[in-house]
Amino acid sequence: MAALWNTRNLTMDDAPNPFQLPNITKFKIALCQLSVTSDKNQNLDRASRSIRFSVEQGAKLLVLPEMWNCPYSSDYFAKYAEDFDNRDASPTFPMLSEAACCHGITIIGGSLPEWDHGRLYNTCCIFGPDGKLKAKHRKIHLFDIDIPGEISFKEADTFTAGDQPTIVDTEVGRIGIGICHDIRFPELAAVHRKRGVDIICYPGAFNMSTGELLWELVQRARAVDNQLFVATCSPSRNSTGSYTTWGHSTLVGPSGEIIVTSGHEETTVIAEIDYSNIQLQRKSLPLDDQKREDIYKFIDVHELNP
Amino acid sequence: MAALWNTRNLTMDDAPNPFQLPNITKFKIALCQLSVTSDKNQNLDRASRSIRFSVEQGAKLLVLPEMWNCPYSSDYFAKYAEDFDNRDASPTFPMLSEAACCHGITIIGGSLPEWDHGRLYNTCCIFGPDGKLKAKHRKIHLFDIDIPGEISFKEADTFTAGDQPTIVDTEVGRIGIGICHDIRFPELAAVHRKRGVDIICYPGAFNMSTGELLWELVQRARAVDNQLFVATCSPSRNSTGSYTTWGHSTLVGPSGEIIVTSGHEETTVIAEIDYSNIQLQRKSLPLDDQKREDIYKFIDVHELNP
Repeated sequence: MAALWNTRNLTMDDAPNPFQLPNITKFKIALCQLSVTSDKNQNLDRASRSIRFSVEQGAKLLVLPEMWNCPYSSDYFAKYAEDFDNRDASPTFPMLSEAACCHGITIIGGSLPEWDHGRLYNTCCIFGPDGKLKAKHRKIHLFDIDIPGEISFKEADTFTAGDQPTIVDTEVGRIGIGICHDIRFPELAAVHRKRGVDIICYPGAFNMSTGELLWELVQRARAVDNQLFVATCSPSRNSTGSYTTWGHSTLVGPSGEIIVTSGHEETTVIAEIDYSNIQLQRKSLPLDDQKREDIYKFIDVHELNP
Repeated sequence: MAALWNTRNLTMDDAPNPFQLPNITKFKIALCQLSVTSDKNQNLDRASRSIRFSVEQGAKLLVLPEMWNCPYSSDYFAKYAEDFDNRDASPTFPMLSEAACCHGITIIGGSLPEWDHGRLYNTCCIFGPDGKLKAKHRKIHLFDIDIPGEISFKEADTFTAGDQPTIVDTEVGRIGIGICHDIRFPELAAVHRKRGVDIICYPGAFNMSTGELLWELVQRARAVDNQLFVATCSPSRNSTGSYTTWGHSTLVGPSGEIIVTSGHEETTVIAEIDYSNIQLQRKSLPLDDQKREDIYKFIDVHELNP
């Protein structure tokens, strides 16, 4: 099993022609908007059921929510964290790997609290249809906010931030990953665009105040500014915990159009993606050709120093 | 009069502390959503009336629409263009200058077709309360689109593009300027943010297809990604010409909230701006401090070579 877990994030040396289409250009995606409880086994059961349902519906790419095996609270992260190299203490990781392998699908595994050498990360694991871990994204931008009387949260007190963007080639396209607050940074989406990503998947758990105001806005903005697909997946709303999530998992197309969105209850959303819309959109309005490098330049640091 | 027209766009040498507040931090803005006809004098009259109304309502900063003295059509641009150095052939320029001086207000003069040394530009003139031209923005990103059966338009066939961002210090804050398609480029807004802009004003004339899908989205995205105000001003809808504009002039606050928006008919929208909301927003959620320069970097080219 350990061999399945080797991983290497893509560098520019791996870059194909950004306009080269993947093998499958039209397929179904599933957004598994799971209800998260404080019972980890129950969370795993719910995820398994949602994955099975998605496969029955024909989905080839599945996205799970941020922190779907653990309540979103500083009191729980360390307790629920798993060391992915220690199988006995990590039930979530092999469950995802086996589900991907068993059903022959690509899973963007939402995010899990990960222990690694004494540090805690907010981590997304991406599994291919052979069950192998294809890449691992550690949340780059930790969520630190302080609005007196409304919300105060500091992920940086608990988590260590990741230090590289994650782009992974799969059977269903070149996929960029971000976790929740990562979506607030147009620069990260620009890195994905520059490296030829077809779809950015953001597992996320926006709260009630930023959710209503910004959740839909930022995902549509990332899609339309970069003329690619954006998929988000949130836990369903649960107002019993200290942090109430907004829900509304969504798929946005490359012209900023909402293809499908859910409500806030537990659900599995299925939608069709057609990557040819990316080329269509870029041909009609070639934003990339219209950029003005004599006025501004955008640097992908890892492209310079892979 | 000629002395009023001297202009120099700001460079980094002029940069104050980006967190330094302007003299006036709370004031009224007017968005003059004008009806544009093929009669230039009538367009000037309508603008004068809207300016007077705005002043009566207490507005200190006025924004006019893109191409408000000229129908938005390649058949008209050259014919309606003015050489700002030739007063006799340029009724629009002195009208704006005199209105600003007479009422003691700052005018973001929408845009006009400008002749300069045999070239045609889509130009926004910014006048201070002394009537002097404070800066001139020439549209940087020309609108070239081709969606078969829907819309085909190529501004580059007619206009020469501007070659620098425009940031201007006024009595009502540090203002960044973009014209219409300029708003589609998050990089230009990032230049404005980097140079300490309080508000970006985008005179624009989105059409019916991009208007409904994107107009509100992109202005909210620029505001929330840069935590500053964004004001847009469009001509009112007129379906008799070859290009039907969307309307919906809007003011957006630094957390992406719509403060005020119009319908599509001719109107003058008045709203209050309070710049202290910028600091409040940035203090609660310091996006700038959270950016990851080890992963991506944004270069303002003119900052390097002013």
